[in-house]
Amino acid sequence: MAAKKKTAKSAPKNAFYAQSGGVTAVINASACGVIETARKHKNKIGKVYAGRNGIIGALTEDLIDTSKESAAAIRALRHTPAGAFGSCRYKLKSLEENRREYERLIEVFEAHNIGYFFYNGGGDSADTCYKVSQLSKAMGYPIQAIHVPKTVDNDLPITDNCPGFGSVAKYIAVSVREASFDVASMAKTSTKVFVLEVMGRHAGWIAAAGGLASDDDIDLPIVILFPEVTFDRDKFLKAVENKVRKYGYCSVVVSEGVKGPDGKFLSDQGLRDAFGHAQLGGVAPVVANIIKDGLGLKYHWGVADYLQRAARHIASKTDVDQAYAMGRAAVQFALKGENAIMPTIVRKSNNPYKWEVGKAPLSKVANVEKMMPANFITRDGFGITKACRNYLLPLIKGEDYPPYRNGLPRYVRLKNVAVPRKLKGKFEI
Amino acid sequence: MAAKKKTAKSAPKNAFYAQSGGVTAVINASACGVIETARKHKNKIGKVYAGRNGIIGALTEDLIDTSKESAAAIRALRHTPAGAFGSCRYKLKSLEENRREYERLIEVFEAHNIGYFFYNGGGDSADTCYKVSQLSKAMGYPIQAIHVPKTVDNDLPITDNCPGFGSVAKYIAVSVREASFDVASMAKTSTKVFVLEVMGRHAGWIAAAGGLASDDDIDLPIVILFPEVTFDRDKFLKAVENKVRKYGYCSVVVSEGVKGPDGKFLSDQGLRDAFGHAQLGGVAPVVANIIKDGLGLKYHWGVADYLQRAARHIASKTDVDQAYAMGRAAVQFALKGENAIMPTIVRKSNNPYKWEVGKAPLSKVANVEKMMPANFITRDGFGITKACRNYLLPLIKGEDYPPYRNGLPRYVRLKNVAVPRKLKGKFEI
Repeated sequence: MAAKKKTAKSAPKNAFYAQSGGVTAVINASACGVIETARKHKNKIGKVYAGRNGIIGALTEDLIDTSKESAAAIRALRHTPAGAFGSCRYKLKSLEENRREYERLIEVFEAHNIGYFFYNGGGDSADTCYKVSQLSKAMGYPIQAIHVPKTVDNDLPITDNCPGFGSVAKYIAVSVREASFDVASMAKTSTKVFVLEVMGRHAGWIAAAGGLASDDDIDLPIVILFPEVTFDRDKFLKAVENKVRKYGYCSVVVSEGVKGPDGKFLSDQGLRDAFGHAQLGGVAPVVANIIKDGLGLKYHWGVADYLQRAARHIASKTDVDQAYAMGRAAVQFALKGENAIMPTIVRKSNNPYKWEVGKAPLSKVANVEKMMPANFITRDGFGITKACRNYLLPLIKGEDYPPYRNGLPRYVRLKNVAVPRKLKGKFEI
Repeated sequence: MAAKKKTAKSAPKNAFYAQSGGVTAVINASACGVIETARKHKNKIGKVYAGRNGIIGALTEDLIDTSKESAAAIRALRHTPAGAFGSCRYKLKSLEENRREYERLIEVFEAHNIGYFFYNGGGDSADTCYKVSQLSKAMGYPIQAIHVPKTVDNDLPITDNCPGFGSVAKYIAVSVREASFDVASMAKTSTKVFVLEVMGRHAGWIAAAGGLASDDDIDLPIVILFPEVTFDRDKFLKAVENKVRKYGYCSVVVSEGVKGPDGKFLSDQGLRDAFGHAQLGGVAPVVANIIKDGLGLKYHWGVADYLQRAARHIASKTDVDQAYAMGRAAVQFALKGENAIMPTIVRKSNNPYKWEVGKAPLSKVANVEKMMPANFITRDGFGITKACRNYLLPLIKGEDYPPYRNGLPRYVRLKNVAVPRKLKGKFEI
């Protein structure tokens, strides 16, 4: 009996890792950082179990045994976009509202000897992670919960920036530069305005990245529509007209979250087809139509959608490095006994760009959204300031190309072997 | 007098080069091939004058003196997308219909001692080039006209493929792979279908490239809507449903040119906003709505538009090499006294991929459109066959990354110095 007790006590706790919310080009680089670092400390961390489809995997006891993956496969996560274990959009309610879910989590954690909880996500996930971190206190289950920051929206507080954002920013900056070269070539007899819709429901960080396409090397006419700035049709048309008059053409970068004076999304035009059926459209065609009606200029429009956040082929090296570092730091903090925190990126200098790993208490991260500072948007509301440029530029620096085979990137797909279930009965979510 | 005559006679003829129609990621690589090769034969070709905005530059005597550009700047054209001299959509009428235009061309050519005409474009441009090649016969002006093939649509006849297509194909294949990874991650609780609209008004070559995203390494569920196949709502919904049932998610690649049973473009839905104003939409949101209505699945949609054909950052090395080779071959053919031809790409073998330069008479190229062979589309109408894959794969092989600075590709912008005008009076187009 004593021997058995001793074994149980000395067996290192396992870790649970899950991906949450919209995926990015580099969230798997964070997973790589977590797993590779944990594997270096097998005396303290047993196995890393990943949640299949995020926290749902924990609730339904659908765990993936990452120890079944080779070192090469785990290494390849660093250059593979999207969520290798599956993600989900699922926010835990408060302990008061749904105690059943927390009891279930504890049941699963206990059954699989899980003592570490690494949750890789954005604002909502930080909230979930914070709630889990409180289980020790609230329900007497010992667990260390560390949040690994991830979001293309770049809206987490305290951290200088969020892994995932730099790569989207690079994709948008590169794409706007390329499309601007295209429309410049065509402008004499054809298209004069190109409109690109980008992500960012609440904050204009991604739209701002479009402004990087123009710099001291290459001056390009770009008009940005930020969700932070109420859309003003006349001012917008004037801005486009001025660019076209000066350059002969113009690119417009519009955030999906732009709202009109009525407070409604500009994309929400109540479109109906010939039979009167409601149709969903993006904001890019709406803006293109405004240009056609208001200025009579020929246009093209694009919607980057998932392409922008999945574009691992043109990921920012800074972003990949930071995503990995956040995963590694999460484990290192856990090994130091930390709980209820999130590793952060602390900017030390812009030029040369220097940063280091910091940490933030989850109580201050959960449910706080970081908006663009007012001084990042030019006074006319259509461009980015020097301060914004200085902030953004280091985040898109460096290329980190994946390996190719037959002309296509070799992204890894894991075996994702299930951990044998130990609990009886199903948990419905 | 005799001495002067001799000088005039021995001065090598200048060349005219122009870019036409929609630009591509590699049309400048062809320009690079033309100019670098011409520079090596200064005894036979004087200067290369580029048309500012294509053939319009010739008609309006708005010529660019490429000899003012450094060797480094011309070399950088190889990695710069879009049309460095400006392109145009302008088709010469027949000699009978608009003799004035041809007389004007001869006037400009004569004033600038132009004896070589290199025209870089697609089907319409081949027609224009062919007409110019006949000026010797029809109007007694000695000129050698060579067409340099270019089109993302891959629809020129005789040549195995067209420079510009391989890079779009690579971009679409890579993007569909990446977006498929993304939607796979989200499918459990969120998006199950991703729809991507791609170019190709008449032929499904670009849509077909989306099929490459799935291969023996990485099996992905992809449904392709070709312009060659009449859209059948029920069959389409069934195809998507089957993929979602088997894989949990699905990517749809839809060509902008897909038509319904009524023969109208699927994108032409007669959309109206809340005020009854007609709105232009793409085909992607239409297909997304069909999925929502028919299957009730959550979807996302994107429209690649100019991003696909300007994406020099992920250009195919095969494509860049071939684009350059076509420009070089055009000059070499001219030096051999050829007229009214187009260099072509002749495929010698698939594996290993081998190709060489051939030539085609313009009389057989002009106004002929190459469609997808029927045996390239699977019997169900939604996928590509092995034969199609074997054809496409070599065209996307290899990466040819541009140089970067501050996280952005360093694309060149030429000085584009105008050649002093010699003619009086303006020519209105």
